[in-house]
Order: sequence, then structure tokens, then C-alpha cells
Amino acid sequence: MYGEDRIYKKVEVIGVSKNGFEAAIQSAVRKAHTTLEKLSWFEVGEIRGHVGEDGEIKEYQVVLKVAFQLKEK
Amino acid sequence: MYGEDRIYKKVEVIGVSKNGFEAAIQSAVRKAHTTLEKLSWFEVGEIRGHVGEDGEIKEYQVVLKVAFQLKEK
Amino acid sequence: MYGEDRIYKKVEVIGVSKNGFEAAIQSAVRKAHTTLEKLSWFEVGEIRGHVGEDGEIKEYQVVLKVAFQLKEK
Amino acid sequence: MYGEDRIYKKVEVIGVSKNGFEAAIQSAVRKAHTTLEKLSWFEVGEIRGHVGEDGEIKEYQVVLKVAFQLKEK
Amino acid sequence: MYGEDRIYKKVEVIGVSKNGFEAAIQSAVRKAHTTLEKLSWFEVGEIRGHVGEDGEIKEYQVVLKVAFQLKEK
Amino acid sequence: MYGEDRIYKKVEVIGVSKNGFEAAIQSAVRKAHTTLEKLSWFEVGEIRGHVGEDGEIKEYQVVLKVAFQLKEK
Amino acid sequence: MYGEDRIYKKVEVIGVSKNGFEAAIQSAVRKAHTTLEKLSWFEVGEIRGHVGEDGEIKEYQVVLKVAFQLKEK
Amino acid sequence: MYGEDRIYKKVEVIGVSKNGFEAAIQSAVRKAHTTLEKLSWFEVGEIRGHVGEDGEIKEYQVVLKVAFQLKEK
Amino acid sequence: MYGEDRIYKKVEVIGVSKNGFEAAIQSAVRKAHTTLEKLSWFEVGEIRGHVGEDGEIKEYQVVLKVAFQLKEK
Amino acid sequence: MYGEDRIYKKVEVIGVSKNGFEAAIQSAVRKAHTTLEKLSWFEVGEIRGHVGEDGEIKEYQVVLKVAFQLKEK
Amino acid sequence: MYGEDRIYKKVEVIGVSKNGFEAAIQSAVRKAHTTLEKLSWFEVGEIRGHVGEDGEIKEYQVVLKVAFQLKEK
Amino acid sequence: MYGEDRIYKKVEVIGVSKNGFEAAIQSAVRKAHTTLEKLSWFEVGEIRGHVGEDGEIKEYQVVLKVAFQLKEK
Repeated sequence: MYGEDRIYKKVEVIGVSKNGFEAAIQSAVRKAHTTLEKLSWFEVGEIRGHVGEDGEIKEYQVVLKVAFQLKEK
Repeated sequence: MYGEDRIYKKVEVIGVSKNGFEAAIQSAVRKAHTTLEKLSWFEVGEIRGHVGEDGEIKEYQVVLKVAFQLKEK
Repeated sequence: MYGEDRIYKKVEVIGVSKNGFEAAIQSAVRKAHTTLEKLSWFEVGEIRGHVGEDGEIKEYQVVLKVAFQLKEK
Repeated sequence: MYGEDRIYKKVEVIGVSKNGFEAAIQSAVRKAHTTLEKLSWFEVGEIRGHVGEDGEIKEYQVVLKVAFQLKEK
Repeated sequence: MYGEDRIYKKVEVIGVSKNGFEAAIQSAVRKAHTTLEKLSWFEVGEIRGHVGEDGEIKEYQVVLKVAFQLKEK
Repeated sequence: MYGEDRIYKKVEVIGVSKNGFEAAIQSAVRKAHTTLEKLSWFEVGEIRGHVGEDGEIKEYQVVLKVAFQLKEK
Repeated sequence: MYGEDRIYKKVEVIGVSKNGFEAAIQSAVRKAHTTLEKLSWFEVGEIRGHVGEDGEIKEYQVVLKVAFQLKEK
Repeated sequence: MYGEDRIYKKVEVIGVSKNGFEAAIQSAVRKAHTTLEKLSWFEVGEIRGHVGEDGEIKEYQVVLKVAFQLKEK
Repeated sequence: MYGEDRIYKKVEVIGVSKNGFEAAIQSAVRKAHTTLEKLSWFEVGEIRGHVGEDGEIKEYQVVLKVAFQLKEK
Repeated sequence: MYGEDRIYKKVEVIGVSKNGFEAAIQSAVRKAHTTLEKLSWFEVGEIRGHVGEDGEIKEYQVVLKVAFQLKEK
Repeated sequence: MYGEDRIYKKVEVIGVSKNGFEAAIQSAVRKAHTTLEKLSWFEVGEIRGHVGEDGEIKEYQVVLKVAFQLKEK
Repeated sequence: MYGEDRIYKKVEVIGVSKNGFEAAIQSAVRKAHTTLEKLSWFEVGEIRGHVGEDGEIKEYQVVLKVAFQLKEK
């Protein structure tokens, strides 16, 4: 698709999963793909998590930017 | 709500008010909440302002990121 | 318009053009203006490009933030 | 106290208050001062907040670094 | 004033006040406006403060950039 | 716990493990939880590793900030 | 001029032009050279612009640092 | 090896794999080790990925810095 | 080429030209392409320039990262 | 010690000395080593100083992060 | 002097010396003190240098911010 | 040499010495000059060090970028 003038939009989302970082990313990408628009790529920003009373990680949180092509109206 | 897979979206807005920074933030949060989506949290970015001819601050401007949960279609 | 409480939204887009950086910016601004909303200003982020087999730049890519006033519903 | 060799320690804390940012800062400084050590100064990092169901800010959160002189054992 | 070629200068100042952050900003803007040049806008950088022996904030310090139009000689 | 004034402390730690990044994070969180204080959350900073003579990764190192609530004395 | 002890000063300016980014830079450099001091070099910071009602860029704005040698009194 | 004067070189590479981030890192480290020089350590920079038409991640991309000791000629 | 494991290398270069920024970028890309390796893309970093005695820009300098695929030996 | 799971803690300190930057660093490292814990390494952050009425530097201040291994209880 | 409202100005200078970094800093502070205004403190930014044909450092360059109190007119 | 189109390459190296930071920089510059290419300038990045059992600094480590002109083949 190189050579054609076009425009992409980036949206910042936060994926949350109890199954690790890659699961949080995959789930966020999949949901953004169905909820927002067909994605082309993503970029990982912050990586964080929630710790339970027992010292185990209960939740993995990943801030992502997801990008998709913006079709002209 | 910990423990459930979910996804949030962050949107960047700029609140402007003549009544100080907290007013600019509160007003931006309130407007984004009604205009965009029910917010969960916000993060303050840049803080700036406009100065009048008389050296008084006429306008307070705050760049915010506001976040809300993205519901699946 | 100074003195009135109001709110702006910033959106991140990527303009792509084979005619140089200013062309990529102009085209992205024009398309975002018709596709998204009437823009007030833009800010340039990353500047990048794609190189062909012959060592010539085939595509100029500019990451921009574009801003427009958010009207209350 | 200029001219004497000495050492300070910086600790990162997060003050949370429902009464605005300055209240969050003041309360964090006061608590760190009694809980940790007699503070000399502080520096504001991130500024954030929690939004309620009604679009009002329920909680102001400020990430601070607080500094105090480290006495030799 | 859009459309005319012109040039602004930004100067970095630090406002200090015992009456809170907005007081430190307002006072710095007012003093820079009379001491330096008629300001057009300002941008807040670092926010810090000095803590007294009793754990109370004695001084609020705000690093600002202030901007004014540079007239040609 | 929203609505109550409180204060958290963040501590920077480095988790090291030969079993990958998630293992390094989990182990650091677990150890900080028992050694320091009951954690509430963590944030990932730098990610690095040590390479052996044979080109295999022998050690995964992750710089984390871990946060816990600071109880008043 | 290598080998001599000397001192330079950097000043932050913003060039504004309706004729593109290089025009904004050239005009700012030229004006700073006559208004402030004979420049030695410049560094580009932020690049931004103003968009008109018709979606066309009406103004290009470039934040620059310009540097000149500081002569001793 | 502490105590000896020596010099290392860092090289920036991008590892790409369809099998996740750790696979992308491991494969880049292994290839850089055979192609460039015997590595001592690596540092992870950006983390990104390519999304297919079906919303699944087709490729994981990790920007790394890899370091090795520079032997004198 | 998506889907295949591979590795790229990024090299930092500085293009210098008296004919403007795009000329400096194009010339650097072209020279790096023949001197180093067949490039795939580039990313613009710092943008600077040298000013002559007469206040005119004599030289445009652009710091770039250029990237090419690393073939296995 | 490579290959064993372990955890380090980083603490931010500020060394102050009237005898130059290396003296400020050395003194801070030595004091942190006796006051806090046996250090493994340090990283220099900000470098600053205090200037006297006569234009001479009266005090050198260096912000450091010092790191030590965290033993399990 | 704590407790009084006041304002400081920061100026960016570059000290150059052939006698090392501390010499470059000391000389820049001393010259800025006589040329500009009586300084209160300084902060070190970039540190760089020029290398001669023989591989020896011919010049040390340090970018500093120097600060002084701004007296009201 | 101003006025001629040309291209430089920057390489990141880490100089290590037990004799202080300037020694680490000088030694890295000298070694890079003989091992890699005739250098034109360098820029200091991170500054760190290794601490011995006795609390003394055993090793000074400086991350540098060194630059040299790239001759066309």
C-alpha cells in the first residue's frame, strides 16, 4: 500500500487481564478491533498491575496505542 | 471490579476556564462526562494560561487525559 | 473567544504522502478536518519515512495531534 | 546550612484527598513529615483524580517526591 | 493577529509565594509583565515547595515559561 | 476505599530471574510484599537482561515501582 | 575558534509565518539576529500550526532555541 | 572483570517474531550474537506489533539495545 | 514480508546540507543507503542549523535514525 | 552471582559537597553505604550547585540513585 | 529569605573550556555572574566535547541553566 | 568545513575506568578513536558506577555517543 496518500488514527486504550501481559495486550487488541475499527498496528506504553492481599498479581494492565486507517467520508 | 478482563479508552481534552486551574479541570471533566462517555479517572498533562494586556491571567488552560470503560458492541 | 469556558479534544493522526513532509501534514490536516471535525490547530510529533530499493524516499509519514472544539450535546 | 557536606533522601509518595490538589499535597506533606522524617522540601510529579458516576471529581491524587536530611548513624 | 509573520520570546521564571500555587503563578506573571515585557501567555513547568520544621508548607515555588512578542528594533 | 484521605509510598526495586520477564516481575512483587510492606500495585520501568557466552539470555532484569499504603504512626 | 574558553547564551523564540515551516524558521532566525544578537546556531523544538475554517493551514509556528556568544562586559 | 579500563559498544536492533515478545527478544539476541559480536547484555526499548485483518496479532516487534565489549585493534 | 522472524539494525546519522531540511534528510538517506546498507526506513530526531555572520542559515543539520534488515552470516 | 533469583532496591539521595561533583558523589555513596545498606551501584541524575555572592560555586549538589540487594526477612 | 514573595529568572548558557568539565562549569558561572546578573544557583544540562585529529579531547562543553533573582523595576 | 553536504555517524559506547568520570570519558574517546574511526565530537549520556564491599567506588561508567564523518565508498 506504499505510495498512496492516506491517514491513520491512533487511539489510546488500556487492556486489563488476570492472565498476564500478553493476554492483556491480545485481549485489548481484539476488543479494540471489534469495538472501534479494524486495527493495523499497536504500540505498548505503560505496563502496570494490581497486587492482592496475598502478594500475588491479580490483574495485569497495559496502556496501548492502537492504530487504524481513517477512511474518508 | 478487579479480576474481570476489560478495556478502557483514554481521550485527550483541554479544559479552559477563567476561574483558575481546578475550575478548568472540573469543567473539562464534567463536560467530557456528558459529551463523550461516563469517565472513570483523569490525568493532568500541561498547564498553561493566557495573559491580558493588564498582566492579569484571563484564562486557565489544562490539558487532561480522561478515561472511560469501553463497552463491547 | 477568550474568556468563555470551553473544552477542546485532541486526536492523534498519521499523515502519509509521497510529496514531502509539508504535503503529509497538509493532507492529514485537510482529511482530519473533513473526516473528524473542524480543526483549530495541530502539533507535529514524530517524523519518519519509507525508503525504496533504490535509496529514494518513497513515503513521508508525520504523526500529528489535531485539535477541535468539543460542542456540548 | 550551605558549605557543609551532607546527604538528603527523596521518597516518592502519593497524597489522596477529596478536597482538591492543594489539600492532597498539604495532607501528604504533613503525613510524610510525621510518619517518615522531618521534611525539607517536596516536588510535584503526576496529578490525577477519580471521577464518580455523576461526573464529579471524588478524589484528587498527587504523586510527590518529599526530601529530608539523612542523619549519619 | 493570525496571518502576520512575527516572533515571540519565551523566558523561564520561578514564582515563589507563601499563599499557594495559583498565588505563586499569578504573582510571577504579574511581576514578569512589569519587569520584563507585556506577556501573551505562560506555561507551567515544575511545581515544588519548602517545608518548615512543623511540617507545614512555608513556600510554594512554580517554574514557569512566560512568552511575549518580540518587537523588531 | 475512595473518599478517604490517605497516603501511599512508592519504592523502586529490581527483580531478577532466569525464568523470563513475568517471572522476574512476579518474584519481585512477592518478595517486596513480604520484605517491605503489603503492596497495592506496581509499575514496570526498564526491562533488561544478561546474555551468556553462548548467546542465550541467562537473566531477566525488570525495574519496578511498587506501592503500598503508608499507615500513620 | 576551538581551544578558547568562552560562553554562549541560548534564547527560546517562536517563529510564525503563513509560508511554511522553513519560512517560519528563517524569519525567526533573521529577526532574532537583528533584534537580539548575532546568532551562531539554532535548534528546532516544537512544530505546530493554526487551521482556518476551511481546513487549510493559515499559520506555521516553530519553537526554536537560538544561540549566540556572550561577550564579557 | 571489575577494575580494568575497558569500552563497550551498544547497537540498536529490532527483533520481529510471530511467537510473542519474549520470542522476539530471544531471537534478536541470538541473531545479534552471531551476526554482530558476542553480547554482554541487552535493554528493551519500544514494544509494538502488527495486527491482521482478523484482529489477531500477526507479528511482535521489539526495539532492543544490545551491548558487547569492544576489543582494541 | 510479515510473519517471518527477522532482525533490523538502526544506525544514527546526521545529514548536513545547505539546501534545507528535506535536502539534508534526502542526502543523508541516499548516502547511508550506499555507504552502509540498503535502508528500509528512517526516523527524524533533532533538527538544527548553523547561522552565518549575516543572519542567514548556512547549513541545515538533521539527526536521523536509519534502519536496514540484518542478514544472517 | 548471575543465575539466582534476587531483588534490589534503589533509593534516591542527594549528595552535597563544597569540593566538586566527584567529591559530592563519593561522599553520598559512602554515607548511604553506612547509613542505609551496603550498596552495589549508583546512577547519577541531576547535577546542580549553589553560587555565592562573589560568583564562585560554594556547593556542588548531585542527585543519585543508589542500589543495594534486598535480603529476605 | 524564605517566606517572601519573589521571582527568579533562569537563563541557558553553554560554558566551553579546554580544562575539563568542572572548569567549563566554573568559568561559565563566573562569566554569567559578571555579564548577566548575580547568580543564585545553576543546573547542568547536556555535557559534550570536541575531539581533535589525535583523538584527544580539545574542548569540554557544558549546557547550564543559571538562575538569579529578578528585581522589580 | 561549513557549506558542504556531508554525513556523520553516531555510535553509542560505554567507557569504564577506576580513575573517575573524566578518565572514563577520555579513555573511551581515545579507544573509540583508534578502534572505530577518527572522532569529531562526543555527548555524555548516563553516568553510573560500581560500589565495592567497603563503600568505595571501584569503577566509573559513562555512556557516551561518539560521532565521526562517514566517508562515501
